[in-house]
Amino acid sequence: MDIAALRSAHPDHWKKATAIRALTLDAVHAANSGHSGMPMGMADVATVLFEKHLKFHAASPDWPDRDRFILSAGHGSMLLYSLLHLTGYADMTLDQIRNFRQWGAITAGHPEYGHAKGIETTTGPLGQGISNAVGFAMAEEMLRARFGRKLVDHYTYVIAGDGCLMEGVSQEAIGLAGRHALSKLIVFWDNNNITIDGTVDLADRTDQVKRFRASGWQVLEIDGHDPEAIDAAITTAKSSRKPTMIACKTHIALGHAAQDTSKGHGALTDAGQLAAAKEAYGWPYGPFEIPADVKSAWEAIGARGAAEHDAWTARLGEASQSRQKEFARIFAGEAPKALSARIKALKKQISEEKPSVATRKSSEMVLEVVNPIMPETVGGSADLSGSNNTRSGDMSVFDVDNRKGRYVHWGIREHGMAAAMNGMALHGGIRPYGGTFMCFTDYARPAMRLAALMKVPSVFVMTHDSIGLGEDGPTHQPVEHLAISRATPNTWVFRPCDTVETAEAWELALRSTQTPSVLSLTRQNVPTLRTEHKTANLTARGAYVLTDATGKRQALLMATGSEVAIAMQARDLLEAEGIGTRVVSMPCWELFEEQDEAYRKRVLPGGPVRVAVEAAIRFGWDRWLYGERGKREKSGFIGMHDFGASAPAEVLYEKFGITPQAVADKVKSLL
Amino acid sequence: MDIAALRSAHPDHWKKATAIRALTLDAVHAANSGHSGMPMGMADVATVLFEKHLKFHAASPDWPDRDRFILSAGHGSMLLYSLLHLTGYADMTLDQIRNFRQWGAITAGHPEYGHAKGIETTTGPLGQGISNAVGFAMAEEMLRARFGRKLVDHYTYVIAGDGCLMEGVSQEAIGLAGRHALSKLIVFWDNNNITIDGTVDLADRTDQVKRFRASGWQVLEIDGHDPEAIDAAITTAKSSRKPTMIACKTHIALGHAAQDTSKGHGALTDAGQLAAAKEAYGWPYGPFEIPADVKSAWEAIGARGAAEHDAWTARLGEASQSRQKEFARIFAGEAPKALSARIKALKKQISEEKPSVATRKSSEMVLEVVNPIMPETVGGSADLSGSNNTRSGDMSVFDVDNRKGRYVHWGIREHGMAAAMNGMALHGGIRPYGGTFMCFTDYARPAMRLAALMKVPSVFVMTHDSIGLGEDGPTHQPVEHLAISRATPNTWVFRPCDTVETAEAWELALRSTQTPSVLSLTRQNVPTLRTEHKTANLTARGAYVLTDATGKRQALLMATGSEVAIAMQARDLLEAEGIGTRVVSMPCWELFEEQDEAYRKRVLPGGPVRVAVEAAIRFGWDRWLYGERGKREKSGFIGMHDFGASAPAEVLYEKFGITPQAVADKVKSLL
Repeated sequence: MDIAALRSAHPDHWKKATAIRALTLDAVHAANSGHSGMPMGMADVATVLFEKHLKFHAASPDWPDRDRFILSAGHGSMLLYSLLHLTGYADMTLDQIRNFRQWGAITAGHPEYGHAKGIETTTGPLGQGISNAVGFAMAEEMLRARFGRKLVDHYTYVIAGDGCLMEGVSQEAIGLAGRHALSKLIVFWDNNNITIDGTVDLADRTDQVKRFRASGWQVLEIDGHDPEAIDAAITTAKSSRKPTMIACKTHIALGHAAQDTSKGHGALTDAGQLAAAKEAYGWPYGPFEIPADVKSAWEAIGARGAAEHDAWTARLGEASQSRQKEFARIFAGEAPKALSARIKALKKQISEEKPSVATRKSSEMVLEVVNPIMPETVGGSADLSGSNNTRSGDMSVFDVDNRKGRYVHWGIREHGMAAAMNGMALHGGIRPYGGTFMCFTDYARPAMRLAALMKVPSVFVMTHDSIGLGEDGPTHQPVEHLAISRATPNTWVFRPCDTVETAEAWELALRSTQTPSVLSLTRQNVPTLRTEHKTANLTARGAYVLTDATGKRQALLMATGSEVAIAMQARDLLEAEGIGTRVVSMPCWELFEEQDEAYRKRVLPGGPVRVAVEAAIRFGWDRWLYGERGKREKSGFIGMHDFGASAPAEVLYEKFGITPQAVADKVKSLL
Repeated sequence: MDIAALRSAHPDHWKKATAIRALTLDAVHAANSGHSGMPMGMADVATVLFEKHLKFHAASPDWPDRDRFILSAGHGSMLLYSLLHLTGYADMTLDQIRNFRQWGAITAGHPEYGHAKGIETTTGPLGQGISNAVGFAMAEEMLRARFGRKLVDHYTYVIAGDGCLMEGVSQEAIGLAGRHALSKLIVFWDNNNITIDGTVDLADRTDQVKRFRASGWQVLEIDGHDPEAIDAAITTAKSSRKPTMIACKTHIALGHAAQDTSKGHGALTDAGQLAAAKEAYGWPYGPFEIPADVKSAWEAIGARGAAEHDAWTARLGEASQSRQKEFARIFAGEAPKALSARIKALKKQISEEKPSVATRKSSEMVLEVVNPIMPETVGGSADLSGSNNTRSGDMSVFDVDNRKGRYVHWGIREHGMAAAMNGMALHGGIRPYGGTFMCFTDYARPAMRLAALMKVPSVFVMTHDSIGLGEDGPTHQPVEHLAISRATPNTWVFRPCDTVETAEAWELALRSTQTPSVLSLTRQNVPTLRTEHKTANLTARGAYVLTDATGKRQALLMATGSEVAIAMQARDLLEAEGIGTRVVSMPCWELFEEQDEAYRKRVLPGGPVRVAVEAAIRFGWDRWLYGERGKREKSGFIGMHDFGASAPAEVLYEKFGITPQAVADKVKSLL
């Protein structure tokens, strides 16, 4: 690469881009760790994007109508940190850059949502950012349809690397964006032909241009170091009716001895090579030194959006009070005041009518009363709409000619769905939920973990949550997935036992601002157990006494979901024999764990033998099978010990020994 | 669709194909559950494939050189069961078909590997079969290169649906197959334009023909009901130098009232419509009735491969004794006799040299001694070869011009890698292992679960297994992934503490025939703790006393992996204060759980306070923190309580309080 030619062709541009490269080299050198090559390769694209196109205002980072910039190739985090620092984001100080990858710094190894303004999503696990971006772009379409162009009208820009495009989830994202003609989604592919193991063609020879076009994208091909070409391509992309992929031919670690090599992908820390690169750049400055003229040029870019931001604020101010309030409410993620009353009314009605329905159906009943008063909800399913019961009657289908549609047919793409849901939640103004079978949380795992890590309240509606799924067999029967979900930090796993608990779980999920929820719902019918109406949300405490022993309390049964009814029947058997039995419903372990020890001990007191009942493996249950302190209670577990089998659900419960009689027998064997 | 025209155009073909459709309708009707439409739509393709091309012999279902037939669209299981029954596979009796989806039947809802001969892999979770198939085809290439065309020369055929192609993992598979020019891989795409929610274009408008071509495939487009076109396409596909996708335009639920609708995807159980379909087919037979002429025509197909099978057997017999033995050994999945001696020698050497190395490096040391004597191992990494340390010096890279290569650059495709590994193991003759970061078990989860369910001994080499990963931060730091892996039935999760335990874990993983293994390995150096050489494989018991208390045993420390060294240092602190402390290393919970209670109690006796140390969340540890019986021990846990952070590893251990001092303090607080 002829660095001198690049320098001389566009000297002003060159200086700005070089500031990114220099900061990257310095920060990685200081940390002795990180990824230098990608920011050095994509500095030109990012500079042109920020200078000429990106609608943003560094002083107003929360501006809801800003363009979103998503660094899907998250290992190149120094590109983003450099941009935020240079353009004047208040929290991205030079000290933070100096402390790149150190304890307490906001400049983590990969961009972490919540660490600093301007980080729109957490990236690093490849393919996530480009998939989040689909959700961002859908959210923009939906909110533009709802609030009009005056308030919502922005682009979503993504930088994706070869790794992002090799991960399967990218295909799900590409397919969705093409299908929905998300024309305001613009992806820059950092086409540098390098991965960690070597050149890309070691593992892949896919023609990415043809691949994107096959899914309905516009594709432009440019020299990623030519600012005029970059500018022109973005201009073309912005006026397209399709999503656009701009294939940017770049040199990883441009200008460094490691340029165009896999070594250039990682941490370039050699002091001599660093100096040589700066020399080639014509950058005679010390570590972390940005000359005043370059910094002020960048700060002007960061301030470029001021007038546009002010005009937008004025337009918002011209809207009706109720409209302004609504806009603020949904971007704050606040549930409407009416939610509580709706949930209570449904609970009351159900406790009187006592229907016997599957909790997936209960969930639909909740959505029928909730969705009409929460226009910010967006539902969907990974091609199991009729099974997941995720579409309420008021929801029309999101489509190219119906951007107001709030129901998304995600296709057979659990992973892409979950990642796009996260993108919607991150965009703001949308509260997404999406369904698949509980077993296929496996496919969605990487995105579900990121929801927890980022603290976004996506709601994963996971139906057919046990062997109760029946004939489809062990490939479709979760046994370990409750444990997997519960093992994930900052995740509420709700397994409601009936419609009342389902309504309570939904209320908590819809009020959450920091925690994603997994709703684990049955395929099969379960009776209404909460037949005495209580206005309080009992699920909010995680576990509670559903029915106490009539006489001396000798046994304590703990259960969740469909097995609470089994525990209740077992109690009948035991009480008939004079064995006083308490039944505790535990719809959410995480919320129960958050209660104080006094409450936990009141619900699960020492003394009686304990038996847990759950049509899943035991893993994790030992936490509750033993007392809080002192003497260990005699205890047992009725549930699964291995994968399931293919047969009608009732046969499976019988064959796997998850029955009222088995529970009662277990109790008696322990007494 | 003009059924009459189809009938009259190819009457013999029609009858054979109709037998599949009729059996499907009858079985689904009897089960009142299942998926009728796909077998009815793809019966013509399958009939031509089995009649004219598939190299198989129903009486010799284990013939190593048979063509493999993989039903990636596993919900259409009745297609496969029908074919196996009709062609005369001994175990697929008519009774089994009658008991479709019932308890104890081999005809599960989705094809389950191990239930019946002819089921090459478990499918149902979409996208898995086509991804397994890449592994099958790679295995064939590798073994052909090793043993020659006389012994290995077969095709891998796949039927994939729209669901398979929408799942992201299919892109990983398509990319790999194209990159490696797996010309003996032939995929039939059941192009029926229907998914559960409606027509495909509700969710996707990808041009699949262009998509496959973009990755280097040959694509042929045919009418999937025209036997001559099907035959011709397969012939063309077989002689290609590229993998071939045959796009088969089909009608789901052909000839039924639900034809071409999403209703047709599911269980067609209406008796009147069933009768009408049979009427249209010209099939006047009762339920499960196959006329003798049709059955014998099918059985002739099942016997078609007899001569070819005999000739192959003769060719094998002509090979040298040692070659025959080797062929039999690797297909039986038996480790070579020399393995034990190699492992013992390495253990002895290490216990003397006492290196301080990362266990990922230990793993490489094991591979360096094992791979040269196990030519059946195939290693690889999802673009982290230098980090996972998965390539031993003797391994060359698998490529189009080096089919003998035993190292695969999988690219940034954890899911596709794991699924293809399963395919290799299922093919036989190959023992696959593959690496990525422990955190990205998330991406590979669906395939890792299927390895466990199918009982195939794939080895997942998961390095950088804790906050010890350091600066890359929480997106790359597993905290819940040990729990996730341990929660999965039939999975050995090894977390060795040093090189000796790593060698023992590898020996167990390489001897396994029924259980996949997860090797959880450190990024950071750990000391050698097993400094006294023992020939016995202590890891085989799952947990054992590494060092006992010198005086009265007051404390019992349990730890795994990198935290065993911390426990040992804590022991030093405690013993120095006169607190007798036992340290138990627990490299594999699952194997420990399999020991009898007496052994478990010997290792973890009642009495001393218990503290577990693991740089992961506590979830699951309560099983070991409480005694086997009676009194509950005082106990504590030193580990993670939430996601990690970005900083150097040693800082993180300090900040998160996972230190010898913290362990010692915890013990003292409990005493």
